[in-house]
Amino acid sequence: MTAIAPGGRIGILGGGQLGRMLAMAAAELGFKCHIYCPDEEVPAADVAAALTRAAYDDAGALARFAGSVDVVTYEFENVPAETAHILSQHAPVRPGAAALATAQDRLTEKNFLKQNGIATAPFADVANADDLAKALDAIGTPAILKTRRMGYDGKGQARILSPKAAAAAWDAIGRLPAIIEGFVDFEREISVVVARGADGKVAAYDPVENIHANHILDRTYAPAALTPALAGEARAIAGKIVSELDYVGVMGVEMFVGRAGRLLVNEIAPRVHNSGHWTMDACAVSQFEQHIRAICGWPLGSPARHSDAVMTNLIGADAGTWAALAAEPGAKLHLYGKAEARAGRKMGHVNRLYPLGKRPPVTPR
Amino acid sequence: MTAIAPGGRIGILGGGQLGRMLAMAAAELGFKCHIYCPDEEVPAADVAAALTRAAYDDAGALARFAGSVDVVTYEFENVPAETAHILSQHAPVRPGAAALATAQDRLTEKNFLKQNGIATAPFADVANADDLAKALDAIGTPAILKTRRMGYDGKGQARILSPKAAAAAWDAIGRLPAIIEGFVDFEREISVVVARGADGKVAAYDPVENIHANHILDRTYAPAALTPALAGEARAIAGKIVSELDYVGVMGVEMFVGRAGRLLVNEIAPRVHNSGHWTMDACAVSQFEQHIRAICGWPLGSPARHSDAVMTNLIGADAGTWAALAAEPGAKLHLYGKAEARAGRKMGHVNRLYPLGKRPPVTPR
Repeated sequence: MTAIAPGGRIGILGGGQLGRMLAMAAAELGFKCHIYCPDEEVPAADVAAALTRAAYDDAGALARFAGSVDVVTYEFENVPAETAHILSQHAPVRPGAAALATAQDRLTEKNFLKQNGIATAPFADVANADDLAKALDAIGTPAILKTRRMGYDGKGQARILSPKAAAAAWDAIGRLPAIIEGFVDFEREISVVVARGADGKVAAYDPVENIHANHILDRTYAPAALTPALAGEARAIAGKIVSELDYVGVMGVEMFVGRAGRLLVNEIAPRVHNSGHWTMDACAVSQFEQHIRAICGWPLGSPARHSDAVMTNLIGADAGTWAALAAEPGAKLHLYGKAEARAGRKMGHVNRLYPLGKRPPVTPR
Repeated sequence: MTAIAPGGRIGILGGGQLGRMLAMAAAELGFKCHIYCPDEEVPAADVAAALTRAAYDDAGALARFAGSVDVVTYEFENVPAETAHILSQHAPVRPGAAALATAQDRLTEKNFLKQNGIATAPFADVANADDLAKALDAIGTPAILKTRRMGYDGKGQARILSPKAAAAAWDAIGRLPAIIEGFVDFEREISVVVARGADGKVAAYDPVENIHANHILDRTYAPAALTPALAGEARAIAGKIVSELDYVGVMGVEMFVGRAGRLLVNEIAPRVHNSGHWTMDACAVSQFEQHIRAICGWPLGSPARHSDAVMTNLIGADAGTWAALAAEPGAKLHLYGKAEARAGRKMGHVNRLYPLGKRPPVTPR
């Protein structure tokens, strides 16, 4: 593909904080962004050249939007297939339909990983209550039932601590097509934010360690304390995933580190990822710029780190601590311009920087 | 003053690259920006929540603009006094009228510095041809004649190499009220980007060395290679200037380092400054965020540097090298979204980062 030159127009589906940070990174490279979002409040629109406020199934608005830009990308993986299809008739859509199809369905995703020899938690397809009973026999308890589609931040999930709890779990997730996963006795959760360019080259940021609270990312420690061999293996797994998907853009790959030092892939996100926000301040090229480079056919930037970092999400009322955070030397505050600090809502994050090798140890939850 | 909370609205007079980078820094802190600019092409508007396109003497538009925001700032020092006056009736204008009055008039500025014991090149007031002849007798040649008002990037200036050239120089600057400055035999040009908060606290980034080409900044080396004593003196001078002006915001202070290690202030700019662009990638808090913090009554951020840096401006056709710059590891490219790469026009800049103490030596022009 020919690279899109500065001055080109980038369409971004979704107007939340990821779209907002993508739009600012694109502007820094001289691009103009056009946001497409049905919401009343669109944080990304405040830093973009244009906004279309319309539904994701409004074929006419989608066509006009895609016709006005040089490339379309998205900030969320649940872009409907029909939406992506309409857009793709007017502009290239990147990362693209194959990545969306794989990441939108937990079963497809797990099968894709398995076919490529990438280890995951044991899993089974659950189409009905019979499947569930059989799968529980095979996988055992504790296990976790997850809807195949539309799950995020712990939504659409139910734990099954004993076979007796199966029926209640099945009801809890709305009897939707699901998978069941065996419980993994993991030591740590890590992730790799990886990019693949249109030229097929791959660049992975260093693996990071993530601490969750209430199923939402709380903190990211960059880098994760791993042996060089294990860090290399994590990067290689992430690279294999984007290469096998013929992916163009940035992807977040979540992994568990088992007690024996074995890596299991938990989930992939075909977009910029919360666990990559530390790159905004600790790398010359952030994950947001990296994604823009990839989808515009530019060479990828170096994922090298000039500083260690700890990223802390500001969830809901946490954003009210902005004055204390602003007064803290070396803390870089990022706020998303959202009006209402509802419980569980991602309002911003703070990156604390440290010289290389000097980040504080991980504080468990 | 009470700090303006995230979600507040910031008005920015001027829609060029400085306004654009201020708007992005403000958005990162959760503010919404409103740009006021009469131009057809407004790079800052592409990253701002609102734009008023109107003339700087449109009293009605100015009043509506200032009435819609919590504070007004500007990206250029030549804001007409009447404009600032109208704005200030509806919202605080920072850095404010005193700073503008001082920096808009080279004679007022030089007298202010002199009254505060800050060394400058020898200078004299030139209101007419007689003054010029007398001043040349006192100051000698070579000397440089500069209009008191509206000069930048070498405009409104004429060199006088011998007394015979005085009349031609006087014609060349349009016989406008001027000052004449004696030629300084300087070793290097440095600058200090300094900030003063609403609480009176001062934070200065490390002095940097600047290389000009065709009267336009070409490169900035951060930090300047100075003895700790001289670097401290430079910071102290900059701090004294902002404190004496009761200034709130970021200011650029340009200085000459004389051959004997003596510091002379060349000029002050009551705004974010091109020689501070390196802070965007080499400090946790950039000069743009620092300015937003100051004018919003927030505590200043730390001006500490995590990396050394060399900033290179992309002037006119330089911007055409974006593909090569994008492929250079560790180079952070910034483009301003301007359509036409006219000669002499600032189109972008690139920051190259180095570990502390490892920046390459200054290459003279």
